[in-house]
Amino acid sequence: MVTKKEYIQTDITGFDKLFTHGIPKGSTILLSGGTGSGKTNFCLQLLINLAKKGKNCYYMGFEESEERIIEHMKDFGWDPDELINKGNLKIKRFLTSEIYYHGKKGQENIEAMMTKDVDPLLMELEPLTIAEEVGFKPDIIVLDSLTAVSSTFQGKDQSYRFYIERLFRYFETIGSTNFLITETIEMPEVFSPTGVEEFLADGVIVFYNYRRENVRETALEVLKMRGEKHQKKIVAFKITDTGIKVYPEQEVFSAIQT
Amino acid sequence: MVTKKEYIQTDITGFDKLFTHGIPKGSTILLSGGTGSGKTNFCLQLLINLAKKGKNCYYMGFEESEERIIEHMKDFGWDPDELINKGNLKIKRFLTSEIYYHGKKGQENIEAMMTKDVDPLLMELEPLTIAEEVGFKPDIIVLDSLTAVSSTFQGKDQSYRFYIERLFRYFETIGSTNFLITETIEMPEVFSPTGVEEFLADGVIVFYNYRRENVRETALEVLKMRGEKHQKKIVAFKITDTGIKVYPEQEVFSAIQT
Amino acid sequence: MVTKKEYIQTDITGFDKLFTHGIPKGSTILLSGGTGSGKTNFCLQLLINLAKKGKNCYYMGFEESEERIIEHMKDFGWDPDELINKGNLKIKRFLTSEIYYHGKKGQENIEAMMTKDVDPLLMELEPLTIAEEVGFKPDIIVLDSLTAVSSTFQGKDQSYRFYIERLFRYFETIGSTNFLITETIEMPEVFSPTGVEEFLADGVIVFYNYRRENVRETALEVLKMRGEKHQKKIVAFKITDTGIKVYPEQEVFSAIQT
Amino acid sequence: MVTKKEYIQTDITGFDKLFTHGIPKGSTILLSGGTGSGKTNFCLQLLINLAKKGKNCYYMGFEESEERIIEHMKDFGWDPDELINKGNLKIKRFLTSEIYYHGKKGQENIEAMMTKDVDPLLMELEPLTIAEEVGFKPDIIVLDSLTAVSSTFQGKDQSYRFYIERLFRYFETIGSTNFLITETIEMPEVFSPTGVEEFLADGVIVFYNYRRENVRETALEVLKMRGEKHQKKIVAFKITDTGIKVYPEQEVFSAIQT
Amino acid sequence: MVTKKEYIQTDITGFDKLFTHGIPKGSTILLSGGTGSGKTNFCLQLLINLAKKGKNCYYMGFEESEERIIEHMKDFGWDPDELINKGNLKIKRFLTSEIYYHGKKGQENIEAMMTKDVDPLLMELEPLTIAEEVGFKPDIIVLDSLTAVSSTFQGKDQSYRFYIERLFRYFETIGSTNFLITETIEMPEVFSPTGVEEFLADGVIVFYNYRRENVRETALEVLKMRGEKHQKKIVAFKITDTGIKVYPEQEVFSAIQT
Amino acid sequence: MVTKKEYIQTDITGFDKLFTHGIPKGSTILLSGGTGSGKTNFCLQLLINLAKKGKNCYYMGFEESEERIIEHMKDFGWDPDELINKGNLKIKRFLTSEIYYHGKKGQENIEAMMTKDVDPLLMELEPLTIAEEVGFKPDIIVLDSLTAVSSTFQGKDQSYRFYIERLFRYFETIGSTNFLITETIEMPEVFSPTGVEEFLADGVIVFYNYRRENVRETALEVLKMRGEKHQKKIVAFKITDTGIKVYPEQEVFSAIQT
Repeated sequence: MVTKKEYIQTDITGFDKLFTHGIPKGSTILLSGGTGSGKTNFCLQLLINLAKKGKNCYYMGFEESEERIIEHMKDFGWDPDELINKGNLKIKRFLTSEIYYHGKKGQENIEAMMTKDVDPLLMELEPLTIAEEVGFKPDIIVLDSLTAVSSTFQGKDQSYRFYIERLFRYFETIGSTNFLITETIEMPEVFSPTGVEEFLADGVIVFYNYRRENVRETALEVLKMRGEKHQKKIVAFKITDTGIKVYPEQEVFSAIQT
Repeated sequence: MVTKKEYIQTDITGFDKLFTHGIPKGSTILLSGGTGSGKTNFCLQLLINLAKKGKNCYYMGFEESEERIIEHMKDFGWDPDELINKGNLKIKRFLTSEIYYHGKKGQENIEAMMTKDVDPLLMELEPLTIAEEVGFKPDIIVLDSLTAVSSTFQGKDQSYRFYIERLFRYFETIGSTNFLITETIEMPEVFSPTGVEEFLADGVIVFYNYRRENVRETALEVLKMRGEKHQKKIVAFKITDTGIKVYPEQEVFSAIQT
Repeated sequence: MVTKKEYIQTDITGFDKLFTHGIPKGSTILLSGGTGSGKTNFCLQLLINLAKKGKNCYYMGFEESEERIIEHMKDFGWDPDELINKGNLKIKRFLTSEIYYHGKKGQENIEAMMTKDVDPLLMELEPLTIAEEVGFKPDIIVLDSLTAVSSTFQGKDQSYRFYIERLFRYFETIGSTNFLITETIEMPEVFSPTGVEEFLADGVIVFYNYRRENVRETALEVLKMRGEKHQKKIVAFKITDTGIKVYPEQEVFSAIQT
Repeated sequence: MVTKKEYIQTDITGFDKLFTHGIPKGSTILLSGGTGSGKTNFCLQLLINLAKKGKNCYYMGFEESEERIIEHMKDFGWDPDELINKGNLKIKRFLTSEIYYHGKKGQENIEAMMTKDVDPLLMELEPLTIAEEVGFKPDIIVLDSLTAVSSTFQGKDQSYRFYIERLFRYFETIGSTNFLITETIEMPEVFSPTGVEEFLADGVIVFYNYRRENVRETALEVLKMRGEKHQKKIVAFKITDTGIKVYPEQEVFSAIQT
Repeated sequence: MVTKKEYIQTDITGFDKLFTHGIPKGSTILLSGGTGSGKTNFCLQLLINLAKKGKNCYYMGFEESEERIIEHMKDFGWDPDELINKGNLKIKRFLTSEIYYHGKKGQENIEAMMTKDVDPLLMELEPLTIAEEVGFKPDIIVLDSLTAVSSTFQGKDQSYRFYIERLFRYFETIGSTNFLITETIEMPEVFSPTGVEEFLADGVIVFYNYRRENVRETALEVLKMRGEKHQKKIVAFKITDTGIKVYPEQEVFSAIQT
Repeated sequence: MVTKKEYIQTDITGFDKLFTHGIPKGSTILLSGGTGSGKTNFCLQLLINLAKKGKNCYYMGFEESEERIIEHMKDFGWDPDELINKGNLKIKRFLTSEIYYHGKKGQENIEAMMTKDVDPLLMELEPLTIAEEVGFKPDIIVLDSLTAVSSTFQGKDQSYRFYIERLFRYFETIGSTNFLITETIEMPEVFSPTGVEEFLADGVIVFYNYRRENVRETALEVLKMRGEKHQKKIVAFKITDTGIKVYPEQEVFSAIQT
C-alpha cells in the first residue's frame, strides 16, 4: 500500500535539520513534556506551516477555546483566519466527557474522533471517519492532549489500551500524520499516560523545560522515529515573538541533572 | 468574542515586572506551593489592590472564617471594610461538604460555586451563575483552595476531572480572571491535586518556601502563562509589614536543591 | 466577633522569642515530629505553664495513662496535682475506639471531643460542647495525637476530611487555642496524617530529631503561624531536668541533611 | 497506682549505661531492626539475666521451635533448663493462625496472649489473663515478633490498630515490662509494621546492621524512652561467644550512610 | 530428548562474539530496553539473517503493520520479500484484543499464539500448535512485545503468570528459539512487565539507550544466558545504514549513571 | 529432639570457610539475588556435592525442565545420572498451578510439596509427607523458587503467610535442610517476596550481581545464620567451567554502590 516513502517538513526553523529526510508521512508521534514546555506552541506553528503548504490540518483540543487558540496564533503574527477560510485549518475543542459518553447519547458528538462504541467487550468498533464528519480529510492531526483522553479511562486501563490501539490503527486507515501531546513532569523518564503509548507510537519527541540555575530554559530531543534516521541529541529551542526556533548545534546537556 | 486583549495589573510591588503586559484577563491560574509559602497572603493583597481599582473581587475559602481573613488584611494595614461596603470585595467561607452534598439538600447552598448536579453521568450540569446568586458579577475570583475541593472527590478521580473541566469552562463563561490556590510540598514538582489541573490551567505560579541553611526564604516563579511573555526565572519575595514585595532581579537559585 | 487580638505566651524558655507577640489566641496548631522528638514534653510543659496562669488546660490523650502523664510532669519537678485540684488542669485518656463507636453505644463516652454522629452523610453533626461535658470550658486543648484520631478513619479519607473540618470549626466555636500533635518521620516533609491538615491549621511547628554524626539532637521550627510574624528559622532546643529550653540563636542547619 | 518508680537492669554488658536509672518498669518497648541484626539474641540474653534475678520471664515466639530457642541459649553457655525448671523462664511458640482464629475455635488456644474476641466491632474484649493461663504472672514479656502478629491483620489495619491499643493496655494491667521485636529494613526510618506502634510504645531501641565497606557491623540506639533520661547516641555492639556486649563509648556514625 | 546441544548464530556483526558458542537452541530470551533503544531493529535483522540460512522465522507483532515492518527491513537494504516468498519468513500483526477475547469468539483468531481457553481455573489449556495453524513450524519466534501481551491481563496478574508459564512451556514443546521484546525505562533495573518473566526466561539481553552529555548512545548487555558462557560486559552498538553493529571491545560504562 | 548439633558442609570451594562449623542441619535458608546472579548454579552444585556424600537431595523447580537442569549439571562436568540412578538425587519440575489448584483436582498432584487444603480458614492442613510420596526422605531440599510459589498467592497475602509458616514447620517435621531461592533486584534491600520470609528463615544468603564499571561481577554474603557464627562480609565468587568458587578473602565492597 505504501509505495514511495514521503516525509513531512515542518518548516519550523532548525527542527527539520534533526532528520535526514523529515518525519515519515503517516507516523503517529508523541510530543511529551511538562507544563509550559512549549508543546502546544510547537503544534500550532506546525499546523500553520503545513496548512500554508496546502495540507488539511486539524487541531483537536480539550483545554482552550477555539477563540483562545486562534488568539495565540495571532500573537505570533500568524494568520489563522485565512487558512480557516480556505478550509486548510480546522480547530475544534471537545469535552472529555464527549469521549466517555459517546455512544450513549445519540449522534450529537459524532465529530469526536471516537469509535462508535467504547465497550471493549463488543469490539465491533468502527472508527468514525473523521473525514466525512468534519467535512475534510485531515493530512495532519494534532491531539491536545492524549492525557486528557486517558483521564476519561481512569481505573479502566485495559479499555484505554484497547482504545489507543484502535485509535492508532484508525490513523493508519486515514493515512494522516499525527501529533499527540502528552503531559509529563518537567524532566520526564516516562513519556505517556500509561508508559505504553511511547512504544506504540512511531516517534517520540521530548520537550524539556529545565532549570539552569534560577532560569528556565527549553530543549527538545527526538528520542525515536521509526523508519527515519535522526539526530540523537538534546538541542536547545526558544519561543520567540514569531514562533519557535530550534538550535540543532547548541548543546544543553551539561546544565541538566535529572 | 475576545476582541481586544486586556491584562490584569496586580499592583503587587515587583510582581507585574515579570510580565510584558500583565496577566491576560480571563485566565485561570494555579498558585502552587507548600504550607506557609505565602499563597494566601498573595491573593489577599491582589484582591485588595484590584478591588481598590473598582474590580469586583470574590474570595471563596474553605479554611479560615470571614472574620479571620478580614483580620489578616487589617494586619497589613489594608482597609477591607470600606471595599466590602462599596460592594467591590466579597469574602465567603464554604464547607467542603457543601460541594459534596450540593444538589442533594435543596437550594440552601446555592451560593456555592458548584454546578446544580455533581453526578457526572447526567452531565446536564448548569453551573450556577455566581453573579446572580451572590449579587455581583465577579471580575476576580480567588479559590482557597482547589485542594479542598479535590478532597471531596477522593476515590472518584474521573468525577473530579469532569468537574474541573466544567468549572474552568464556567469561569470562561462569566469572563472572570481566576486564581486557584493548590497545596503542594515545599519544593513541588507536581503543581496540583491530580497533576492534571496544571495542564488545564492557563497559568501556573509556583511559590517556593525553601531552606537556606537554617533559615526559610520565599521565592516564586511564573512557570506558565498562556498568551503572554513572562520572565522564566525564580525570583525572591518577602512578606513585609505592609504586604508582599517581589524582587525580580534577585537570584535565589544557588541556594535551592530540589 | 474577634475584637482585640490576644496572644498566648507559653513561658517555655526561649520559645516565645520566636514570635513578635505570641501565638494568636484561638489558633489551631499542629506540632509535627518523629518518635522521641519532644512533642509531648513540650505540650505538658505548656499546659503546666498556662494552668499556673489560670488558664483552663485540657490534655486529651490516646496513649499513656493519666497516672503516667502526671508522673512525667513530676519528673520535671512540676506540680500537676495542685493545678488539677484547683480545676485548671484536666488530663484524660481516651480509646480510639471511643471515637469510632461514639454515637452507636449510647452516651457513655460523651466526654469524647467527638460529634454526635460520625456519619458524614447526615452532616447534622452537633459537636459536643466539651465545656459542659467535662465541667469546665477549656482555654487550651492538647490533643495527643491527631494521628491516633486519623487511624480510626483508615480507608475512609473523605469522612476524616469532613471530620477534621468540623473539629477545627468546633474549636473556633468554643474559642480555645489548640495544639494537635501529629506523628511523622524524624525529618518530615509532610506534616500531618493526610498532608491536608497542615493547610487547614493556623500554625505548624515542626520538631526535628536529627542525627549529628552519632548523636541525636533536637530542634524546632515555626513553619507557619497565621496572623503573626515569626522567626523563619530552625532553632535548637534541649530537654533538661526542669523542662524544655529553646535556643533561638543557635543555628542547627549545617548538620542536617534531609 | 504507680507509687515509687522502679527500673529494670538488663545486666547486658554496657547496655545499662545508656540510661540514668534503667528501663522504667511497666514500659512497652519496641526493638526494631533488620534481618540478622541481633534483636532476638538481645532478648534471649535479657530473659536469662532477669530470670536469674528471680523475675518471671516469658518468651512468646512465632518462628523458631522451643527446642531451637533453648539450643541458641546454650550456644552462648547459658543454662535455660535450670531457669525453666525453677519456673522463672517460659518459652512458647505460637502459630500466627492462633491469633487469627482465636475465639472461633473454642478454648484450645487460650494460652495465646489474645483477647477473647478479635472482632473490633464488639469491643467487649477481655484480654486473657496470661498469668492464670500460663500458670505464672510474667514480669518480663518478649514478643518475637510484633510483625508476625501484624501479618495476621493484613488488609484490616483498623482492627490491628484497635488490637494493638488493647494489647498495650492489657500489658499495663498486668504490670509487665514488655519487649516487642519488630522487623524492619537494615537501616530503618520507620520502626514498626504500620509506623504507628512506635508512637504508642514507651520506648524504641533501634538495631542497626550496617555495612562498613565489605563488612557488616552492628550498633544500637535508644531512640525513645518515656520517663527516663537516656544517651542519645548510636553505639556499637558485638555478639560474642558469651553474649552481646554493648560499647557505649564507641562511635559508629561516620561509617553509616542512610 | 535434547541429545546434542545446538546453538544459534545471529550473524549480527560483533554480537556472536559475546558467547562461547552462541545462543542455546530452544532458549526463550527477553530483549529488554526503553523506547528507541533498537530492540525491534535487532530482531528484524536476526530474523532476516536466520531466514537466509534456511530457518523458519516468525515475527509476531502488535504494533506496526506488516507493510511497515517490511519497509523498515528494506530501509536497511535487506530483501524480506524473497524470504517471505520462499516461506522462511512470516510477519504478522495481531490485535491485543485477539489475545483477550480468544476463545470467546470462535476460531477466527486461531493463528494467535494463544491457548484455547484463557480461563486459568480450567487449566485444560491446550496451546494451539502454531506450526499447524500458520502452515509452517517456526524455528525462531520474535514476539513484539511481551508488554503488549501483558497489558491484556491488567488487574489479573495471577492469570498472566499462569499464561506466561504455559506459553514458555509451549515454546519448549515446539522447540523454537524465542525472542520476547519487553519494554522498560531507558536504564532498566527490572526487565519485564511484572519482574517475574526475567527469572522464567533462559536469557536476558538488556538494551541501554543512555545519555552521554547531550547525545544518546546505545549499548547492550547479556545479563543472563542459561547453559552458555557469555561476556559479562556492557558493550556499545550502533544502528548503521545496513543494520546493527555490536562493538564487543568498546567500554561504555564510565558514561552511564543509573 | 535435637540432641547433638550437626552441620552441613557444601564442599563448594571457599564457601564453607564462611562458617565456624557449617550450615546447621535442619535450617531453612533463603538464597536471595537478581537475574543471572548464580543462585540456581549454586544450588545445583550443592545438590551434586551432597548427593555424592550419600545425602538424599531433592530439587523442586518451577522453571526449567528436568532435562535442562540435568544438562546444566553436565555442562560443569558433573554426573547427575549416576546420582539419580543411585537414588540420591531427584529433580522434578512443577506447575505453579499445581500449588494453586491442589486439593481441588483430586490426588493427581500429590507429589507437590503442598498441604492437602490451601484454604487457610480450615487450617486442618496436614502437610503431605514428601518422603512417602516421592519414595525417599529428602535430607536436602532446593526450592527454585519461593517467588514462583508466592506468585500463586497474589492478592491473598494472608493465605500466603499462613502457607509459608506451615511450610517452614513442615520442613522442621521432616528434618530436612532447605534452600529456598528468592528472586530480587540485583542489589536487594528486601530479600524475599513479601519481606517477611527473611525473618522466618533461619538463614539468608544474598547473591550480588553488581556492575564494576562496564563489567558484571558476582559476590555473596551470609547475612544471617541462626545458631552458627559466620563471617559478616561480602565476598567474591566466580562461576568457572567446573562450578562455583568462592573467594572468602577477596574484598568487593569498594566497587559497590547501592
